[in-house]
Amino acid sequence: MTEEPALAAANRAVGLHRVAGPAGVLPQAADTLDTTPGIGPDEARIRVERLNLDAASFRQLYDKHHGDGEAVRAEVLEIIEARGKMHNPVTGSGGMLTGVVDEVGPESPLGLHVGDHVTTLVSLTLTPLVITDGLKDWDGRSEQVPARGHAILFGRSIATVIPNDLPAPLVMAVMDVCGAPALTARVVGQYAERGQAPAVAVIGAAGKSGSMSLAAARHAGAKALVGVVPVEHEAVALRRAGLADEIMLADARDPVALSAVVRTALGGEAADITVVCVDVPGCEHGAILSTAEGGTVIFFSMATSFSAAALGAEGLAADVTMLIGNGYVPGHAEYALDLLRSDPGVRQLFEARLGASERDGRSG
Amino acid sequence: MTEEPALAAANRAVGLHRVAGPAGVLPQAADTLDTTPGIGPDEARIRVERLNLDAASFRQLYDKHHGDGEAVRAEVLEIIEARGKMHNPVTGSGGMLTGVVDEVGPESPLGLHVGDHVTTLVSLTLTPLVITDGLKDWDGRSEQVPARGHAILFGRSIATVIPNDLPAPLVMAVMDVCGAPALTARVVGQYAERGQAPAVAVIGAAGKSGSMSLAAARHAGAKALVGVVPVEHEAVALRRAGLADEIMLADARDPVALSAVVRTALGGEAADITVVCVDVPGCEHGAILSTAEGGTVIFFSMATSFSAAALGAEGLAADVTMLIGNGYVPGHAEYALDLLRSDPGVRQLFEARLGASERDGRSG
Repeated sequence: MTEEPALAAANRAVGLHRVAGPAGVLPQAADTLDTTPGIGPDEARIRVERLNLDAASFRQLYDKHHGDGEAVRAEVLEIIEARGKMHNPVTGSGGMLTGVVDEVGPESPLGLHVGDHVTTLVSLTLTPLVITDGLKDWDGRSEQVPARGHAILFGRSIATVIPNDLPAPLVMAVMDVCGAPALTARVVGQYAERGQAPAVAVIGAAGKSGSMSLAAARHAGAKALVGVVPVEHEAVALRRAGLADEIMLADARDPVALSAVVRTALGGEAADITVVCVDVPGCEHGAILSTAEGGTVIFFSMATSFSAAALGAEGLAADVTMLIGNGYVPGHAEYALDLLRSDPGVRQLFEARLGASERDGRSG
Repeated sequence: MTEEPALAAANRAVGLHRVAGPAGVLPQAADTLDTTPGIGPDEARIRVERLNLDAASFRQLYDKHHGDGEAVRAEVLEIIEARGKMHNPVTGSGGMLTGVVDEVGPESPLGLHVGDHVTTLVSLTLTPLVITDGLKDWDGRSEQVPARGHAILFGRSIATVIPNDLPAPLVMAVMDVCGAPALTARVVGQYAERGQAPAVAVIGAAGKSGSMSLAAARHAGAKALVGVVPVEHEAVALRRAGLADEIMLADARDPVALSAVVRTALGGEAADITVVCVDVPGCEHGAILSTAEGGTVIFFSMATSFSAAALGAEGLAADVTMLIGNGYVPGHAEYALDLLRSDPGVRQLFEARLGASERDGRSG
């Protein structure tokens, strides 16, 4: 019975005691969460300032209500009140939040202090949340939601202090994808440690996770960097940012075309590591074919099909290691922010993207 | 342009020249394949003796036709004639085949000789196939289909010679899952090489891939082996086979229960490597929670959800490496057959399962 206290602590750390139902599932899978403001010894409470709704979730609500901001706001409030979390039941997604640390339990392992200005790195789909201002300062017409209320972080939740030297919107954009550069750097580093500086191909290289992965691969010791993009204007942007040695155009859903451009860029060889960051289905076969025997494919795209990857590699007799892109790697937030600070190309791409998205926001 | 011949050879090796449509996709994704019996320099032709339909595919056809064997036979013939491969359009699955090697191209890398009795290790969904006997010796009422005709193997297809010392049905049953023990052994071996003999938990341990994975983990140097099964009669069978140090009962879809039994079996610690072999959805969170920080989860179950794994690990701040179970590892067939020969427990479980399935077959 010696393991019982450890087990109870482990269960508390993932927030099981906050699951109101159904019994036995984790907070993410729960219908409703217990949002009591009083915190447990390993919890922390955040005074909420802003929710950032997941893009897919906001789009679904906006379309459903034909752009009626009042109706969108009413439904977001309704979801949060009913579930105790901002977990869109249609898209299954949530978002992130920013706020100020209000109280920290004595056993919280998160390293936060009262007064810290933080952004969460775990999904709103598993974060107990109460809204107290009726979202009165939000017009229901953008993903950025000014809000008052409180949220609870568990022992195993993650949050990071927003640095003073970077604009907050830029920090949030980076946090959204910070697992990708950290895992890419780890895998590249494992090759480099064995004295085999790898050739790396990033598919979907001009996007947020793609550009960060390129910068991370360079930083971790890749010997050659190929960035694959679908359209010329992305190639132009990526070329200006200087993140890749070779920039190639290809439709990632065409396995022959994709592996051909990767090989052309690498003098006839396949990539040692292929990083899939393009968010369309059907890129598994091309990524596998672009990767050398004994190489590694890292799938970050949420459009990845497990069975297409598993059966595809088998059908191709491809001896490749295929990783599910885990969004969490210790130190991932700091690492991503350091890349943003140190790599002008990354920063330029992110700022251009934020500018475009703000323009899109205004036009919508 | 120096890479062009290499590219052309690579495209031929995966069978692109046999895709009749749509253009650009791999044979598995193709609607129809070119089944011309004349072989290319790196191809081999098999004289077909028997098809083994994938269980899901056969069940779908059998149910659709309410057990009318004539109708099932007619539809299988129709599919093969229309598509040039046995690729069930509803289930997306195929099966395997056995036969005798008829002709081998001078550049075939498969190591086959004319007259070899072989079983394919790549899916029928990507294997060009012609049936010439109208399947007249099959009653349409079992997955085992006596057949005459020919099939084509590409340079990157895989086939293995059926050994004389083992019953053919046993060999086929093992071939169906032979990627699992090989990959498990590789991952365990990587830990062992670093001097860290790992604790391994296999979820769904009494099944074909599960029992093989346990045997492989032992063989590759695991220090402790936990087998988790859902019901007592599987625990009894697994205990009799002697493949695990500890056998635990749990519903793998209950993350708390699953991680609790794994920890109980390992004296309060989580597993270094967790192998998921249970073919029901919803086991991702439990597998992640059962695995130590820095550990590895190998997902072999085709019911695995990519997003549940990726978002689950992020939500739990779990630093675990998550592998998509690639069905191909060089030498996997020989390795699995060696385990079958050397481990009486594995053989006993497989023979019991074959016996049960034959009884099931008769009763259906």
